[in-house]
Amino acid sequence: MTKNTDENVIEERIHTVEELLNRNEDLKIKEFIEEMHPADIAEVLFELNDEDQVKFFSILSWEQAGKVLEEVNSETFLEFLGILRREHKILLLEQIAQDDMVDLIAELSEEKRKEIISLLNLEDAKSVRELLVYDEDTAGGIMTKEFISVRKDITIYQAIEDLREMAKDAETIYYVYVVDKNKRLVGVLSLRELIISRPNNIVEDIMHENVISVNLKTDQEDVARAVSKYDLLAIPVVDDNNRIMGIITVDDIIDVIEEEATEDIYRFAGASEVEDLEHYNISERIFASVKSRLPWLIITVFGGLLSAQVIGGFQEVLNKNTVLALFMPLLAGMGGNVGTQSSTLTVRGIAMGDIQGKEVLRTLFQEVCIGFLVGLCCSIIVAIVSLFFIQGEIILSFVVGISMWANMITAATIGTLVPIIFKKIGVDPAVASAPFITTTIDITGLSIYFTLTTILLSRLVY
Amino acid sequence: MTKNTDENVIEERIHTVEELLNRNEDLKIKEFIEEMHPADIAEVLFELNDEDQVKFFSILSWEQAGKVLEEVNSETFLEFLGILRREHKILLLEQIAQDDMVDLIAELSEEKRKEIISLLNLEDAKSVRELLVYDEDTAGGIMTKEFISVRKDITIYQAIEDLREMAKDAETIYYVYVVDKNKRLVGVLSLRELIISRPNNIVEDIMHENVISVNLKTDQEDVARAVSKYDLLAIPVVDDNNRIMGIITVDDIIDVIEEEATEDIYRFAGASEVEDLEHYNISERIFASVKSRLPWLIITVFGGLLSAQVIGGFQEVLNKNTVLALFMPLLAGMGGNVGTQSSTLTVRGIAMGDIQGKEVLRTLFQEVCIGFLVGLCCSIIVAIVSLFFIQGEIILSFVVGISMWANMITAATIGTLVPIIFKKIGVDPAVASAPFITTTIDITGLSIYFTLTTILLSRLVY
Repeated sequence: MTKNTDENVIEERIHTVEELLNRNEDLKIKEFIEEMHPADIAEVLFELNDEDQVKFFSILSWEQAGKVLEEVNSETFLEFLGILRREHKILLLEQIAQDDMVDLIAELSEEKRKEIISLLNLEDAKSVRELLVYDEDTAGGIMTKEFISVRKDITIYQAIEDLREMAKDAETIYYVYVVDKNKRLVGVLSLRELIISRPNNIVEDIMHENVISVNLKTDQEDVARAVSKYDLLAIPVVDDNNRIMGIITVDDIIDVIEEEATEDIYRFAGASEVEDLEHYNISERIFASVKSRLPWLIITVFGGLLSAQVIGGFQEVLNKNTVLALFMPLLAGMGGNVGTQSSTLTVRGIAMGDIQGKEVLRTLFQEVCIGFLVGLCCSIIVAIVSLFFIQGEIILSFVVGISMWANMITAATIGTLVPIIFKKIGVDPAVASAPFITTTIDITGLSIYFTLTTILLSRLVY
Repeated sequence: MTKNTDENVIEERIHTVEELLNRNEDLKIKEFIEEMHPADIAEVLFELNDEDQVKFFSILSWEQAGKVLEEVNSETFLEFLGILRREHKILLLEQIAQDDMVDLIAELSEEKRKEIISLLNLEDAKSVRELLVYDEDTAGGIMTKEFISVRKDITIYQAIEDLREMAKDAETIYYVYVVDKNKRLVGVLSLRELIISRPNNIVEDIMHENVISVNLKTDQEDVARAVSKYDLLAIPVVDDNNRIMGIITVDDIIDVIEEEATEDIYRFAGASEVEDLEHYNISERIFASVKSRLPWLIITVFGGLLSAQVIGGFQEVLNKNTVLALFMPLLAGMGGNVGTQSSTLTVRGIAMGDIQGKEVLRTLFQEVCIGFLVGLCCSIIVAIVSLFFIQGEIILSFVVGISMWANMITAATIGTLVPIIFKKIGVDPAVASAPFITTTIDITGLSIYFTLTTILLSRLVY
């Protein structure tokens, strides 16, 4: 545990600030938070009550306040901005990075948006307006225009001079992008290379020509994959004519990776809530969650009713052997688990780019084999243990074991195939998540179970 | 889609290399891959057959080969190293970053490890031996010793000079760590700040004193959280006396975040396979998967048998109303889904640090409310639609609906409570995953269902 993420340290900080706020010791607070990281300040802020939040916020320096606002949601942003006078709003807004500004105002009403943009300086206003055009899940939507580029025909000395000048406004100065006279991206130099190169060299002669870049419309997940694959600190974003339009820095990529991972995890659970609901009030959160989860549950309801239909079709066997009902939850549970395991591995593998080309068939073969083997082990256990439940009717135990096995192999196959097929036909495989697959598996599992038991029991018993 | 992660581009590259290899056009290959990124070269390599792999590998420059080896597993590493002569091994090993070297040899036998370390230069050998001591999931296990530090009492000019000299061997030069005479970490300066500061300033006067650092023993997940929270490009690792021992760069943090996310996702599915199995052969992969999944499935088997026990206890009711069996899969499905939704959100929330302090009770309250609401909606649908199945027996439909509702509220409560309790008692909540929770929910759900139906039916019907 680092001292900065230790829960006790955080609790103590909050406590100290609350005490100082109560005693109106503004100066002491200023001092207490002076060397504190903005992320820590934001963390303290969120834990205060509404009244204290406003008090605390107004004690922050413009720079601190700006950094804090980069971490809040649109609603909180508006709220805090609302307590300031116009001149102060201008000072504050200047501190916020372009890409965060775009995130903050993207979901506001047209009117509110215009009002805020009107408070920005001309250059920022222009950039923000341009950035607002792009879909928020694309490279264009998460990039910033605060990057450093130099012309290819200048010297290293000149490039370093330019860089010093531009450094203040840039999100990162660790990559210097090289452009031709049409602003087309033709190369890249790291700050490291700039520093160790001879000052009278020409940029073009020492730059790397093979720049890894993404298009404005590239999905943010693909952007993250490229940054991760090539271990970049930032990636340039170009338009269709290869002109550099912005950059995306690695800290934003980390957010994308975490967001996408959370999204994937939620989807596996049949919920689509990915919004950061942290700062909403509880009834809004509940309502949003119900809305996001209900569709999946209703699919499950109808899946379950279909299962009921299937069971109804076999009611005769069931009436004769009510004992068969005992193993239905076991059957559904095993099929569901095996299927979920296979589908999870497949969906994650597709998302991480591990399952493509030759790997597709290999994965399918592999999962079916795994289903075969784990199915065999589990069925033997079930067959043996179930003997105790059904007073030693060996044939019935055998039948239950066999259907369990068939069910598990089928489940593994469905769990693997569905995401692959979804991917092929262009549907996000993560949508083929738990509820859909488990419902399918439930229905096929019950059909297999009752068909096999009907056939086997009629052959072996009657 | 970026041009570098586009599947077609990758396919084409592989194809070109295969063709050139067939025609033994080594020079053309050298040319073709000259400007290619090492990550792309590695990608091509992995898709070749064994024979071509060796041929292709021997065409790479030492630098390319070194970078490629940073991406492979221990087995492949040994294999490729094996085809080289001693002098060439030395040249190649020099190219590999310390932290990757440690990953590569950590799991080898003592003997093999010694053999490889004996090929390193003295300094690297010393570092690697030191790094091997730390657990691979901790800061010490993923850090590198290739960082830049300067004494606090020198000038900026001198610091930049030092940096130029050390730049070649450092993993990142974007942070310069400042130490006192006992090597204790006392500050940090970004390269950006160094560059824009006046050369005759003293380091101590312009450095940031509040350095965010982690301890050697800090869990890698906490390291990732700190880097993500504070938007760092690298984080220093210190020992218990605050002496700087190494750094961890953001590209390794991205790997940690992806690895942990995959691990979490797999755990939700009841599988613990997180090893990169990509380069193992298929029977090894299958065996490893079976081993990792079987324990969860066997828990489910016994859970299912417990369910069978519960149903057995109510066999009398069931015999009278075999129609009750129809809704058992539906009941299990709904409970399972609601419970999984709640537990997934809770486990992920705990992992992301969102659920702590005040948030714990709020989350529980919220999830129970959600269970109440979605349960209400679904139960009404079930009650109405089930009427068609059971020939208009309104009371039975009503009973099924009510038990469904009770089941869903309980499921949401269990799904939220179990991870919270696990966290409190110090067990990783992600272990409280699908199989455990769904089994618990199945059993409580069936008990509720049959108890309620028994009571209600006896009151209302008999």
